[in-house]
Amino acid sequence: MKKVLIINGPNLNMLGIREKGIYGNETLEDIARRVMEESGRMGMETDFVQSNHEGEIIDKIHAARGRYDVIIINPGAYTHYSIAIRDAIAAAEVPAIEVHLSNVHAREEFRSKSVIAPVCRGQISGFGGSSYIVALHAAELI
Amino acid sequence: MKKVLIINGPNLNMLGIREKGIYGNETLEDIARRVMEESGRMGMETDFVQSNHEGEIIDKIHAARGRYDVIIINPGAYTHYSIAIRDAIAAAEVPAIEVHLSNVHAREEFRSKSVIAPVCRGQISGFGGSSYIVALHAAELI
Amino acid sequence: MKKVLIINGPNLNMLGIREKGIYGNETLEDIARRVMEESGRMGMETDFVQSNHEGEIIDKIHAARGRYDVIIINPGAYTHYSIAIRDAIAAAEVPAIEVHLSNVHAREEFRSKSVIAPVCRGQISGFGGSSYIVALHAAELI
Amino acid sequence: MKKVLIINGPNLNMLGIREKGIYGNETLEDIARRVMEESGRMGMETDFVQSNHEGEIIDKIHAARGRYDVIIINPGAYTHYSIAIRDAIAAAEVPAIEVHLSNVHAREEFRSKSVIAPVCRGQISGFGGSSYIVALHAAELI
Amino acid sequence: MKKVLIINGPNLNMLGIREKGIYGNETLEDIARRVMEESGRMGMETDFVQSNHEGEIIDKIHAARGRYDVIIINPGAYTHYSIAIRDAIAAAEVPAIEVHLSNVHAREEFRSKSVIAPVCRGQISGFGGSSYIVALHAAELI
Amino acid sequence: MKKVLIINGPNLNMLGIREKGIYGNETLEDIARRVMEESGRMGMETDFVQSNHEGEIIDKIHAARGRYDVIIINPGAYTHYSIAIRDAIAAAEVPAIEVHLSNVHAREEFRSKSVIAPVCRGQISGFGGSSYIVALHAAELI
Amino acid sequence: MKKVLIINGPNLNMLGIREKGIYGNETLEDIARRVMEESGRMGMETDFVQSNHEGEIIDKIHAARGRYDVIIINPGAYTHYSIAIRDAIAAAEVPAIEVHLSNVHAREEFRSKSVIAPVCRGQISGFGGSSYIVALHAAELI
Amino acid sequence: MKKVLIINGPNLNMLGIREKGIYGNETLEDIARRVMEESGRMGMETDFVQSNHEGEIIDKIHAARGRYDVIIINPGAYTHYSIAIRDAIAAAEVPAIEVHLSNVHAREEFRSKSVIAPVCRGQISGFGGSSYIVALHAAELI
Amino acid sequence: MKKVLIINGPNLNMLGIREKGIYGNETLEDIARRVMEESGRMGMETDFVQSNHEGEIIDKIHAARGRYDVIIINPGAYTHYSIAIRDAIAAAEVPAIEVHLSNVHAREEFRSKSVIAPVCRGQISGFGGSSYIVALHAAELI
Amino acid sequence: MKKVLIINGPNLNMLGIREKGIYGNETLEDIARRVMEESGRMGMETDFVQSNHEGEIIDKIHAARGRYDVIIINPGAYTHYSIAIRDAIAAAEVPAIEVHLSNVHAREEFRSKSVIAPVCRGQISGFGGSSYIVALHAAELI
Amino acid sequence: MKKVLIINGPNLNMLGIREKGIYGNETLEDIARRVMEESGRMGMETDFVQSNHEGEIIDKIHAARGRYDVIIINPGAYTHYSIAIRDAIAAAEVPAIEVHLSNVHAREEFRSKSVIAPVCRGQISGFGGSSYIVALHAAELI
Amino acid sequence: MKKVLIINGPNLNMLGIREKGIYGNETLEDIARRVMEESGRMGMETDFVQSNHEGEIIDKIHAARGRYDVIIINPGAYTHYSIAIRDAIAAAEVPAIEVHLSNVHAREEFRSKSVIAPVCRGQISGFGGSSYIVALHAAELI
Repeated sequence: MKKVLIINGPNLNMLGIREKGIYGNETLEDIARRVMEESGRMGMETDFVQSNHEGEIIDKIHAARGRYDVIIINPGAYTHYSIAIRDAIAAAEVPAIEVHLSNVHAREEFRSKSVIAPVCRGQISGFGGSSYIVALHAAELI
Repeated sequence: MKKVLIINGPNLNMLGIREKGIYGNETLEDIARRVMEESGRMGMETDFVQSNHEGEIIDKIHAARGRYDVIIINPGAYTHYSIAIRDAIAAAEVPAIEVHLSNVHAREEFRSKSVIAPVCRGQISGFGGSSYIVALHAAELI
Repeated sequence: MKKVLIINGPNLNMLGIREKGIYGNETLEDIARRVMEESGRMGMETDFVQSNHEGEIIDKIHAARGRYDVIIINPGAYTHYSIAIRDAIAAAEVPAIEVHLSNVHAREEFRSKSVIAPVCRGQISGFGGSSYIVALHAAELI
Repeated sequence: MKKVLIINGPNLNMLGIREKGIYGNETLEDIARRVMEESGRMGMETDFVQSNHEGEIIDKIHAARGRYDVIIINPGAYTHYSIAIRDAIAAAEVPAIEVHLSNVHAREEFRSKSVIAPVCRGQISGFGGSSYIVALHAAELI
Repeated sequence: MKKVLIINGPNLNMLGIREKGIYGNETLEDIARRVMEESGRMGMETDFVQSNHEGEIIDKIHAARGRYDVIIINPGAYTHYSIAIRDAIAAAEVPAIEVHLSNVHAREEFRSKSVIAPVCRGQISGFGGSSYIVALHAAELI
Repeated sequence: MKKVLIINGPNLNMLGIREKGIYGNETLEDIARRVMEESGRMGMETDFVQSNHEGEIIDKIHAARGRYDVIIINPGAYTHYSIAIRDAIAAAEVPAIEVHLSNVHAREEFRSKSVIAPVCRGQISGFGGSSYIVALHAAELI
Repeated sequence: MKKVLIINGPNLNMLGIREKGIYGNETLEDIARRVMEESGRMGMETDFVQSNHEGEIIDKIHAARGRYDVIIINPGAYTHYSIAIRDAIAAAEVPAIEVHLSNVHAREEFRSKSVIAPVCRGQISGFGGSSYIVALHAAELI
Repeated sequence: MKKVLIINGPNLNMLGIREKGIYGNETLEDIARRVMEESGRMGMETDFVQSNHEGEIIDKIHAARGRYDVIIINPGAYTHYSIAIRDAIAAAEVPAIEVHLSNVHAREEFRSKSVIAPVCRGQISGFGGSSYIVALHAAELI
Repeated sequence: MKKVLIINGPNLNMLGIREKGIYGNETLEDIARRVMEESGRMGMETDFVQSNHEGEIIDKIHAARGRYDVIIINPGAYTHYSIAIRDAIAAAEVPAIEVHLSNVHAREEFRSKSVIAPVCRGQISGFGGSSYIVALHAAELI
Repeated sequence: MKKVLIINGPNLNMLGIREKGIYGNETLEDIARRVMEESGRMGMETDFVQSNHEGEIIDKIHAARGRYDVIIINPGAYTHYSIAIRDAIAAAEVPAIEVHLSNVHAREEFRSKSVIAPVCRGQISGFGGSSYIVALHAAELI
Repeated sequence: MKKVLIINGPNLNMLGIREKGIYGNETLEDIARRVMEESGRMGMETDFVQSNHEGEIIDKIHAARGRYDVIIINPGAYTHYSIAIRDAIAAAEVPAIEVHLSNVHAREEFRSKSVIAPVCRGQISGFGGSSYIVALHAAELI
Repeated sequence: MKKVLIINGPNLNMLGIREKGIYGNETLEDIARRVMEESGRMGMETDFVQSNHEGEIIDKIHAARGRYDVIIINPGAYTHYSIAIRDAIAAAEVPAIEVHLSNVHAREEFRSKSVIAPVCRGQISGFGGSSYIVALHAAELI
């Protein structure tokens, strides 16, 4: 049974509350519920966490080493500058999938650059809360 | 029943033949077969085409207008400079998903830049032939 | 009697169909008709062609050598990267006028850069379908 | 009856006197005469002014508000840096057409960049004194 | 009693007339009146001038030397390129405060760069006509 | 009665202790006291907090949503790279004012760039501890 | 007996006709004849093709796989942007030599950049039609 | 007796566990032990700490003020973007030495840029765990 | 008898008054006097003018055509952006010498770039008021 | 009988000794021998020199003026920055051919830039020691 | 017994004579003496040389091959552009340590870039003459 | 009696021989003679040297320390990259004047950048051999 850790970065706790025009009405809890159901159906075990703290996210990634088969990570704004999270993923040696709710290539220029993607297995973006479900299917296949 | 057009750009016909270290042993035919089986199982109808010609790819995208519900496109090297394909997707007004076999962010710098992604709904990269399967799941959810 | 070749690049066949907010309701056929009437009135002979294929556009430019007095070209997206079309115009040694429907300077940054303009006689942009009519008047004066 | 204000920027008073290799023998007065004749024939009323002073050009643009239907402006060297003239055109809310005698894209790199074009309706360049005549035709059609 | 010179650059005379979506309904006269009232209440003496001419603005800054305690300047578009105004402020040796009506950081990229700010005491932007009132309070405290 | 949250970023706790040449003798406590007095006089209620932790600052901004009318934030060094704080302010949907003690435009090049300013209402810099007082006046007017 | 495929890109069919100042009087047919004679003398078998179509050039490169020992390619303007041709050469796994008639380093800045050279064995430029003869000697030695 | 604080940034706790090809087999504990022994022998007192949290590192640097004679800091990935840590070191006014295990100039381009080095006394990189020992000798001499 | 026009740009009227640390105690009048004496001794006739207005400087340059043998110009801050003055010098077809009081290469980066120098005969900088005297000697030799 | 001077720049004396993975086993002496034999066979007279000193290389190029018909130069690392060698070649007015052992376009980014190539007749790279032989054939044809 | 060659680049012979504000009072002879004493104490044999000539430095590095165990090099200004010295170090295959007296990261921007560091084992900067002593300790440990 | 050392960099020995279109017919000997005469007349003592070797030029500058009052240096191509010569001038602490024969701002882009000028007193360019005479006058006045 595959074990998957899903890590959500800064401001994702505000989902469904803030800027609904960009991010939709779904809250992070809604997404967590959908993910749990779908992963259950697929026979995977998932943990779903969120933090606004770069250091905490790094700690969680380190702790995943040897305990999870796949990390699905939505690094939020840290995507664009946290080389520390990048190094943490490389150090953890757990295959990671980077996900984004919005199509990062259709927004401000700086959002199309990920410093984390080069150490991930792959990247999925643009499908709203469904990006996580799509990532589960990717996790199943790697 | 959702109809999906899967377009493959230049050099993808060489898959499984060329540079197996980067792209693996699977040929484009192998992938087409996997896609057909999976999409059948999911109740979607897919057409799977390949061309090395930018103009032909544009023609195919135009022709998809009003005939397909989703385009899944692996633009190959055209990803990085074909503004003409970008404009074709915008003109066709069919939701499109960009896919890549390899993790484009872990290769040469120029491969991380897509001129096409901004007009797509989302982007999936890094899962080898499975990127197409993952894209089918995304297509199902949009 | 001046002979003018009017070449339309990729996606212009979708005019009046796609993205009417940017490009208006006029189709390429509507423009062709207007151009024919106006050029007739001005005593010029015009041929009006379109292609999505870079290679075909180059072939048409080569063939214009010694057969037309002026080329009016709307290179569409090829404006921004087709050095091959640029070289074709330089090789044809027929005076060329670059036209654009929209004001390319008021859109995405990359649309304000033309690799083709340096080898043209002049450039006209921003007047919708009327850009072609304005170009006819320019063609008359060169 | 359409009213058109034609504004000429710095150094255009030297036309036909200076650097004839680039700009030809026609003086600004010659052009003014041609413009007057042609616009008369087209049933338009034109005023034709020149100034080397950025502030004066701004004042003239402001004064055009509600008094002219179209501004045709050749901003000369101010094209490349006068954001103040750009803002004046935006403030005047009179449709403006930017014209250039020479093909600005075939000269020094810095001449291909216009800070003013983004707030104009369109741009015409490269036809010598005839650029103004071509612009009158554009003015007629907008 | 503190004496303050308030200098307004190009196009600010069009305030409340032009582009109300960005700049609001308040005219420059409205702002001048508000400034006069508020500065009177604060026991400061203010002069309020406007010019579209870079040279005139420089002359006014020079003339302020030894005659005013503070300059509040909204350089308008000159903010982004007038090194001459920058040098005038440095030469005048009167403490200066740069103000902007709009949030210059939330508009076109080029508007976030001020060549003048480095020689000012401070900068205030984004509060519409109230930016001037806020600047008066800053002037009081320096 | 307007409620204002004043957030101070990294190293501001060292104010009046460190580098007095740049930042002056006033400690953060001194500033807090001045702010409290002035805001009391103006009839506003203010809370004044400081943290060196990016994550904590984000948490505080989230918590401000619906509880404060205005945020005044001096993001310290996070000004230049914390897109996470930027997104937090956008998510909180409380109008924010960015303040700086020093004139950021007169120091190292990298300090003139704020990634946070684009989502704030306005920005005030250069008046030392008085920047906060000036910001209170701005807060009163928005 | 070594088999060599010589591929000529866009506009090379205009050689000896166009811009003789830059490219000389020799036509592509003249060069082909010289190449045939020299390669015959050297005991090599050569095929000599030209196309203006990027897609066709890619098809030809793919077809060379396993059929030729060396590819000599003059990609013309595609040199500077066709990552698709680059990938085709990498996929074909036939050693390739890039040739240019003119010294690309002594012309416009953009002509000194080749996106194709990194996947070739070597590059030869600047010897006019003789570049091909020089390339034959290189082909003999690899 | 010199007191030295040695601060280790993000992911250094994974040393000897992760990516041994780049960083070797030595764990952070091994290094700490070596450092303790060597500094003891040299008559210095050292404290050795690690944190993945930017804010905590800043707090530790502040606390070092007046308590330590030298800070040796390996900022890990924060080297490349934490202006907050840079400002903390400047604020603490304790001479600091930046160390790196690997030769940061021989890795990815972005690793050769340190935003922290300009406020340190010196920098030592490339000697693996021995970089710390070398830094102790530098600490002795400043 | 050689006739020389000496043009001084913005803020030079403040010389000897402003920023004496950079520019010295000599006023523009002092320099004018020195220039008059020296040029008299050398048998040249000089006119010495100053303006803060870009447009006026352009007018003066135009008027110099056919009336002066040499222009010596210190364009002040306009050096760095006034393409209009550059074009005026090219149009006037009077040999021009650019002078600067300070060593522009030893100050802010942007001061080392002159948009005017490319159309001048030569450039002299760094000798304070003596730069003008040195320029007279250059004027004598051209 | 054509006379050819072959100049080898810095570190080429280490060939066949150093980094054999990149440069192969052939020493510079081996290459010299091959060159002598081949040029003898071709009826050319060659001199073959090497120096690590930029100044000496310049002296040798100057001395070649009027004494040799062609210079073949492998400038080694000076390729990328020695504008002095570039100017020496331009001054010598002997046609020069730049050669490189390795494919400079397939190595570090900075190696693809030659400051010398623009003043050479042509460039040959990537054929190991055979690059020199290929260059002899080019020398024969110019 | 480890043999160490210490190479000093251009202008280091002026140490203690020139610009004492930046480099201190110690002459190169003083440093040589300190180095000799310390290395003697550590049981290493050192040679200490200086040259202003790039070519001579290259020659010395080549000669070190197989004769020294470690090179300590202070390349002076050559640090920033001598790719020839970089290649010499790579060719010599003797482990090298780059040292600098001053903290190169706290000076002009261009001094923070080393083209030589990527081929060295490590880099030490900022400790004045003591940088050499620190380097000896590093040499002992590699 | 002022003593002046005039140093000429690489390729200046070819003056009057090479590229007369750019540099004129005057040889370096002609210039030396003119300089000697003029300096004699002015009561200055001059030495006039030339070298193609960067290291030699550095040695000469060092030797000038305390022996000459002014250095006039035409660094030739070293102007654009020899930071070593820049540092030598700073170390020598003899006021230096940089001269150029041609107007470096009217040639290739890279020639307008001097790495040496920031440490010189001033710069003179564009007056051919007379640049040296003009520099003597500058030397007299500093």
